[in-house]
Amino acid sequence: ATSRNFRQAARLLGLDSKLEKSLLIPFREIKVECTIPKDDGTLASFVGFRVQHDNARGPMKGGIRYHPEVDPDEVNALAQLMTWKTAVAAVPYGGAKGGIGCSPGDLSRSELERLTRVFTQKIHDLIGTHTDIPAPDMGTNSQTMAWIFDEYSKFHGHSPAVVTGKPIDLGGSLGRDAATGRGVMYATEALLAEYGKSISGSTFVIQGFGNVGSWAAQLIHEKGGKVIALGDVSGTIRNKAGIDVPALMKHRNEGGQLKDFHGAEVMDASELLVHECDVLLPCALGGVLNRENAPDVKAKFIIEAANHPTDPEADEDSYQEGSGRVA
Amino acid sequence: ATSRNFRQAARLLGLDSKLEKSLLIPFREIKVECTIPKDDGTLASFVGFRVQHDNARGPMKGGIRYHPEVDPDEVNALAQLMTWKTAVAAVPYGGAKGGIGCSPGDLSRSELERLTRVFTQKIHDLIGTHTDIPAPDMGTNSQTMAWIFDEYSKFHGHSPAVVTGKPIDLGGSLGRDAATGRGVMYATEALLAEYGKSISGSTFVIQGFGNVGSWAAQLIHEKGGKVIALGDVSGTIRNKAGIDVPALMKHRNEGGQLKDFHGAEVMDASELLVHECDVLLPCALGGVLNRENAPDVKAKFIIEAANHPTDPEADEDSYQEGSGRVA
Amino acid sequence: ATSRNFRQAARLLGLDSKLEKSLLIPFREIKVECTIPKDDGTLASFVGFRVQHDNARGPMKGGIRYHPEVDPDEVNALAQLMTWKTAVAAVPYGGAKGGIGCSPGDLSRSELERLTRVFTQKIHDLIGTHTDIPAPDMGTNSQTMAWIFDEYSKFHGHSPAVVTGKPIDLGGSLGRDAATGRGVMYATEALLAEYGKSISGSTFVIQGFGNVGSWAAQLIHEKGGKVIALGDVSGTIRNKAGIDVPALMKHRNEGGQLKDFHGAEVMDASELLVHECDVLLPCALGGVLNRENAPDVKAKFIIEAANHPTDPEADEDSYQEGSGRVA
Amino acid sequence: ATSRNFRQAARLLGLDSKLEKSLLIPFREIKVECTIPKDDGTLASFVGFRVQHDNARGPMKGGIRYHPEVDPDEVNALAQLMTWKTAVAAVPYGGAKGGIGCSPGDLSRSELERLTRVFTQKIHDLIGTHTDIPAPDMGTNSQTMAWIFDEYSKFHGHSPAVVTGKPIDLGGSLGRDAATGRGVMYATEALLAEYGKSISGSTFVIQGFGNVGSWAAQLIHEKGGKVIALGDVSGTIRNKAGIDVPALMKHRNEGGQLKDFHGAEVMDASELLVHECDVLLPCALGGVLNRENAPDVKAKFIIEAANHPTDPEADEDSYQEGSGRVA
Amino acid sequence: ATSRNFRQAARLLGLDSKLEKSLLIPFREIKVECTIPKDDGTLASFVGFRVQHDNARGPMKGGIRYHPEVDPDEVNALAQLMTWKTAVAAVPYGGAKGGIGCSPGDLSRSELERLTRVFTQKIHDLIGTHTDIPAPDMGTNSQTMAWIFDEYSKFHGHSPAVVTGKPIDLGGSLGRDAATGRGVMYATEALLAEYGKSISGSTFVIQGFGNVGSWAAQLIHEKGGKVIALGDVSGTIRNKAGIDVPALMKHRNEGGQLKDFHGAEVMDASELLVHECDVLLPCALGGVLNRENAPDVKAKFIIEAANHPTDPEADEDSYQEGSGRVA
Amino acid sequence: ATSRNFRQAARLLGLDSKLEKSLLIPFREIKVECTIPKDDGTLASFVGFRVQHDNARGPMKGGIRYHPEVDPDEVNALAQLMTWKTAVAAVPYGGAKGGIGCSPGDLSRSELERLTRVFTQKIHDLIGTHTDIPAPDMGTNSQTMAWIFDEYSKFHGHSPAVVTGKPIDLGGSLGRDAATGRGVMYATEALLAEYGKSISGSTFVIQGFGNVGSWAAQLIHEKGGKVIALGDVSGTIRNKAGIDVPALMKHRNEGGQLKDFHGAEVMDASELLVHECDVLLPCALGGVLNRENAPDVKAKFIIEAANHPTDPEADEDSYQEGSGRVA
Repeated sequence: ATSRNFRQAARLLGLDSKLEKSLLIPFREIKVECTIPKDDGTLASFVGFRVQHDNARGPMKGGIRYHPEVDPDEVNALAQLMTWKTAVAAVPYGGAKGGIGCSPGDLSRSELERLTRVFTQKIHDLIGTHTDIPAPDMGTNSQTMAWIFDEYSKFHGHSPAVVTGKPIDLGGSLGRDAATGRGVMYATEALLAEYGKSISGSTFVIQGFGNVGSWAAQLIHEKGGKVIALGDVSGTIRNKAGIDVPALMKHRNEGGQLKDFHGAEVMDASELLVHECDVLLPCALGGVLNRENAPDVKAKFIIEAANHPTDPEADEDSYQEGSGRVA
Repeated sequence: ATSRNFRQAARLLGLDSKLEKSLLIPFREIKVECTIPKDDGTLASFVGFRVQHDNARGPMKGGIRYHPEVDPDEVNALAQLMTWKTAVAAVPYGGAKGGIGCSPGDLSRSELERLTRVFTQKIHDLIGTHTDIPAPDMGTNSQTMAWIFDEYSKFHGHSPAVVTGKPIDLGGSLGRDAATGRGVMYATEALLAEYGKSISGSTFVIQGFGNVGSWAAQLIHEKGGKVIALGDVSGTIRNKAGIDVPALMKHRNEGGQLKDFHGAEVMDASELLVHECDVLLPCALGGVLNRENAPDVKAKFIIEAANHPTDPEADEDSYQEGSGRVA
Repeated sequence: ATSRNFRQAARLLGLDSKLEKSLLIPFREIKVECTIPKDDGTLASFVGFRVQHDNARGPMKGGIRYHPEVDPDEVNALAQLMTWKTAVAAVPYGGAKGGIGCSPGDLSRSELERLTRVFTQKIHDLIGTHTDIPAPDMGTNSQTMAWIFDEYSKFHGHSPAVVTGKPIDLGGSLGRDAATGRGVMYATEALLAEYGKSISGSTFVIQGFGNVGSWAAQLIHEKGGKVIALGDVSGTIRNKAGIDVPALMKHRNEGGQLKDFHGAEVMDASELLVHECDVLLPCALGGVLNRENAPDVKAKFIIEAANHPTDPEADEDSYQEGSGRVA
Repeated sequence: ATSRNFRQAARLLGLDSKLEKSLLIPFREIKVECTIPKDDGTLASFVGFRVQHDNARGPMKGGIRYHPEVDPDEVNALAQLMTWKTAVAAVPYGGAKGGIGCSPGDLSRSELERLTRVFTQKIHDLIGTHTDIPAPDMGTNSQTMAWIFDEYSKFHGHSPAVVTGKPIDLGGSLGRDAATGRGVMYATEALLAEYGKSISGSTFVIQGFGNVGSWAAQLIHEKGGKVIALGDVSGTIRNKAGIDVPALMKHRNEGGQLKDFHGAEVMDASELLVHECDVLLPCALGGVLNRENAPDVKAKFIIEAANHPTDPEADEDSYQEGSGRVA
Repeated sequence: ATSRNFRQAARLLGLDSKLEKSLLIPFREIKVECTIPKDDGTLASFVGFRVQHDNARGPMKGGIRYHPEVDPDEVNALAQLMTWKTAVAAVPYGGAKGGIGCSPGDLSRSELERLTRVFTQKIHDLIGTHTDIPAPDMGTNSQTMAWIFDEYSKFHGHSPAVVTGKPIDLGGSLGRDAATGRGVMYATEALLAEYGKSISGSTFVIQGFGNVGSWAAQLIHEKGGKVIALGDVSGTIRNKAGIDVPALMKHRNEGGQLKDFHGAEVMDASELLVHECDVLLPCALGGVLNRENAPDVKAKFIIEAANHPTDPEADEDSYQEGSGRVA
Repeated sequence: ATSRNFRQAARLLGLDSKLEKSLLIPFREIKVECTIPKDDGTLASFVGFRVQHDNARGPMKGGIRYHPEVDPDEVNALAQLMTWKTAVAAVPYGGAKGGIGCSPGDLSRSELERLTRVFTQKIHDLIGTHTDIPAPDMGTNSQTMAWIFDEYSKFHGHSPAVVTGKPIDLGGSLGRDAATGRGVMYATEALLAEYGKSISGSTFVIQGFGNVGSWAAQLIHEKGGKVIALGDVSGTIRNKAGIDVPALMKHRNEGGQLKDFHGAEVMDASELLVHECDVLLPCALGGVLNRENAPDVKAKFIIEAANHPTDPEADEDSYQEGSGRVA
């Protein structure tokens, strides 16, 4: 799909076909064997890789995923997508993506550390502050970045800038946690403004209360928006007068489930997407709106905040420590 | 086939299955985009790659091919094969293989130089005297190695040892040209010795008069063997009394075709493999002996000297400058 | 002249004669042979050089010129001048200068690219962000800097800071284009202020409408100055009421010649320097005011904006892309 | 003269004029300022340089001279000459030459050490085992090479191969001392052989008893040649029966002057070159044979062993420690 | 004492004993032999060292001392202290300390320069902008840092950030001179604020008028505090109405002794610490207040500004150029 | 003792006292903290160190010991001893020694591997083929060297020459195993030759049958010497007709104890050193001959082959894999 979109753009721009081909071929792809001793003393080999798509505009940038079915073609496409994303956002970076074919959930913390360090040893000469800067992605987090930073520094000296998404104590950026949700709020604000409306005074229904959905809800609430219905796997709730989002956050952070929140009534999950409201924000799985339920949607505006069909909150921009994917 | 053979060997050795898996996964694979200006000013992009299979026994070693249909799986297999070859030969090297997807015949010498230099710029950090040492292979030759050596030296200082198969004037090894043919002669000598025979006093039929066949013929002739029939695309000839191989070499080096050689009579090409003789040496295409013609073969011994089904003389051990594949 | 001025300064400062000698000897001079294939396939060799005068105050800084008659002594003098310029301006840099002996106008764009890349390969170890930072100069421009940046980055990783004067898209500084003209305007403003006057309310005659003159004219116009006469090779014009400089810029940018501009009347070129005005700004060739015409000059103030006898606008501070010197 | 000879050779070889030009331009020339504190505490600045002519055949090779009137053009010529010398001798090296403009005799040992170390600091990145390997030359010796080796090693690790001509205890080659004299003996032997003669049975007159002459005399003596006359600044002597060269060496090594040697009679210096003999070997100043004395020369063969008009024994091949030039 | 304090903190934090042990062991200690020629031509060898305690939070930071009795255990403790200081101050640095066992007062400036340069050559690979950044300390000053910076730059390129405390002309920080005194003033201000008081309106007695005491006095004076008594080795003075500190500074900078200052009356040194006042600031030797004089102290507040028993003003934070310790 | 011996030598050589002092101070000493996770998941910190005594004659050379009571002073002495040993043996190396304070017997193989790799990471910049080359020593073996080689190669490329004593399959030297015993045999041969005797025809008593003693016995047997008595902890045996050493080796290699060997009779261990013989070779503990037993020794010659009081066969020259010290 990425290539199809690119080809369409190339046609619209009247790009020379050779230049088009050249832009499609990645700058560099690397696969490395990562062999580690497991905790039980046996050896295990994993394949790690990094696709570096383009560095014409600056050092390449993109996530590192740990996933058993990392698909090379998909990763190629995502690396390319990073090139277009950094270019469209006009930041001086290129695009890359990488990962290791493994089930992070089946590896102990100590095995994950060893695997990450071996992977870093194998690619340390090909990444770097001025070359290619990894970030957390599906199945990795700020701890993974800390290991990469530490291992890379053994070879190149103290180099915190070799990764983004590292722990704040090691120089990570404040605000990364909320960034995707904040982007969703800004997109909502911009869309409404085009129609002479604002967040304050509108009503919102949000599907998903993970990293994206909870921050979107909170920031929309801060701007005066009324979140009237909200749901995730732990429950679906509504409150016509507007849910008290900070209270809900507190409830959830204390381990509570949505369905047990006192400030709202439980509703049927199947009614969430078709609930009456001004703005509907699907922030969980992608592909939830389809031919069948589309006619019943009553929202006036829809903001697509779930960008990945299988693991919607896990892309480089939204994944964060503590979301439980690694453990 | 390489992997199947390896797995069989692993079973016989009683290798642990994890170690077996680890030995099958290449140490490192790299793909790079090589964009060059063509002579007409347009841009062209090619994909170059290098598979480094194993370096446990020393720096990796293997050819660089230029071929339009370089198949990644085949190259992976060939890189692995190099690991086993260097190990079996007990030389302190590992295995690798690489190439560029291009038609060397469609590129000018100047385009080939630019392409080789760009490819070298892209992989220079991953090869080296102590890391991985390329060699000529299908579609490349000593000139290609000279370009790699020169470009590599811009980054790492005068480094003749970064490639083998370079021109003799730049430090290449004497005898490389004849090496495969000489190996064929040694194998023949060893086989005959086991049966109480020797080259001197035996008769030989040779298919192919390229790098392998012509050197095999010449060295067998020197050892007193009688080459009684011989053929390539320029003709098939025989002489019961034994062909004067040095004279034939001179004839061919002056541009003559086999069928025009005065010291032998022309025969039908189809009869070559089934010609009466002590030893038959197929030195051209692989797979020439099959179910159909096998029953008619009259030779007492067969030495397999054609190791590749599609381009038999072109592997790293036999390819040499001037064999016309590049031009 | 540079050395004479320096010696005079040294005397005034009471510098030890050994220290004086040491300050005159350049830190390092390098000459390299640059051989490239020309578009017609023949080889051509050029001599490139770099004089690094002094790095006591920081990385050295200075232009790269492409000119057939680059004179080593002159370049030495200019490198030294850069040391004094950076010191007087109190920026933490030293002084350098370099170039290639070639006629950029006789080389195709592709030949210029090859030449620049070979030159960069030959000196890459001696320049660098913390060592010596080239800039455009006579016969070179932001494209030349982009090539140096790209070639240098092959050796040292993404290094935009190795050159200044690169294209803005690659990290070049905004405002570089107008910098010299803006400096002329500031000098004018300062001079007038000393005499209780200001740009607003004064009349100006400007010789030259290239990079320096046109920006000086525009900025003086913005400050309320009245440009009453102006000339370059495409015509000499005047307008007592003040020329509409933005309109003239538009006219010129659309390819128009000065003599065809509607908002002014054509005058004789020879009268420009002796035209009645408050301030005369020679912004074209140096040495235009001499014993013969000096007595006739009627301007009350003269700002010297042409600093080079043969190619006045071409020094490192003023040269910019598109000024036609390369093509 | 070097260039003239080269051009003549180029004509004979039918070299393309562009290639000829390219071969004349040095690969790289570098000049550096070397400032040291003198023993009296004042500063002194010297200009050091290195001309690297050509590295196509291997690392460049050539001497480092310390001389007050080091002439850049002469050094360029000598660097070029080294390229042709290594090529003709078929050793895998290119050509270079360098030096410092100073009077080694006016500097203390400690000042010479400081100067050599500063010079090495300034050029260490441009020389090296695989790049350019200095050697002793006029005004430098094995001690100078030891300083270069030590200083270079601070930057690049223990690197004895960065210089030749170092002290034997630090890895210098045995036999270097006698090498030029031995070459003279071999040339003499080869010349005589062409005429059916041999050293044994011939008579010799030798001018000069320094490094070249004394070793030539000794080796000719060993081969059975009869040295019948011999001279240097300390005297001119003859002995029809043949001078006992080992005894003369002993005499001289004990500080004796030639004129005081008991095994020969003193003769007039002016008669040496015109003395009756089979072979005349001028091993002192160049240019001693000229239009005026040529008609009187009675030798049947002349071997030119003095290759430098002003300091004949001091080139890279002959200079050695202890010959008193530095002290 | 440092370790004891650390162990107490570890106990309070409930640190695992293995982690506690690991935090006590320095990351790296290095000792190097530094041999220099002395001015009289003889050789002298000194032992230089660097203890790098911990880099978990960033590049290590700490002074370089030149002192004849540098005690390894004390230096280890001080390096550890730097780790805790940078952590408590929440700056992203670790801790280190080093020095050379020598009497700086017995070495000439030229010997000190040679010694510093040799020491730098020996440790240059272990320090660096991203690794470990020295600073002046006892017996060293900004000139020492300039030598380290210059020598280090020979190996790693222009690197002003490899040291702090360098001369301002070479990039040193403004305000370093006054930093310790300013810290004393801030501490005083904070302490008084806790008791509802302020500097303005309080009276002060200051022991010591070196780098710490004079700046503390000046800054307290600026804030409106009344310095009523003050002493150093050149005299002890008092003025009930408040000493005019700027005038006293001028007096001292012109070489005057405290006892000769006209704006105060001389008093007995032994009475200084027990003088009536609101705040007493011992800014000279440590340990001046003890069991014997403590009962007599009349100050309501005491600010400890003397942190070192033998050389109180000489730690990394306070030492500055020109304080005469080296000369 | 080493320093005392050195001082005595210095006096005999008339060394300048400053040079003497300079020769005693090590070139460089380094201590590093090595923290590893133990198999049970807890952290453990060890102190590793390396003393590099002198590199004037070439790269430094010396063992790495793993021992709980590694004593810095002893290691300093041993490093110095290596300098004198390499100098006396006239090999172009300097001297070094190092180790880690740990009980190798208390660490699992996997913990030893992690510890060795961390230690190598901490010192990799300070050792190297041209700088300092470790070797096995007490508590380390060829496996330890293989780990160092592998870890070092991650930083510097395939570098087998960074250690000696590595496994033969990775490039270790043949004959290392027997080297010390062979040296003992050569020393014996030389001693006897001085007295007009030879190994053949002499009788030998050997204490110790470990690496040194068993090889000495075998090589003496090969030279025709008669080993008439022999002992280690597993028994003491004698045979007037000469023990069949190859048979004894076979017996021992099959796990047999000396006392169970059929080709000799068991004797009392206390009589071994005072047994009648031509040559006595103590090859076990040092210090076994003392005031008390010396008068009773009947051997005519004694060869000291036990050089270390506590662990006689464990020095760098004799230690080998499989001697059971690690396991």
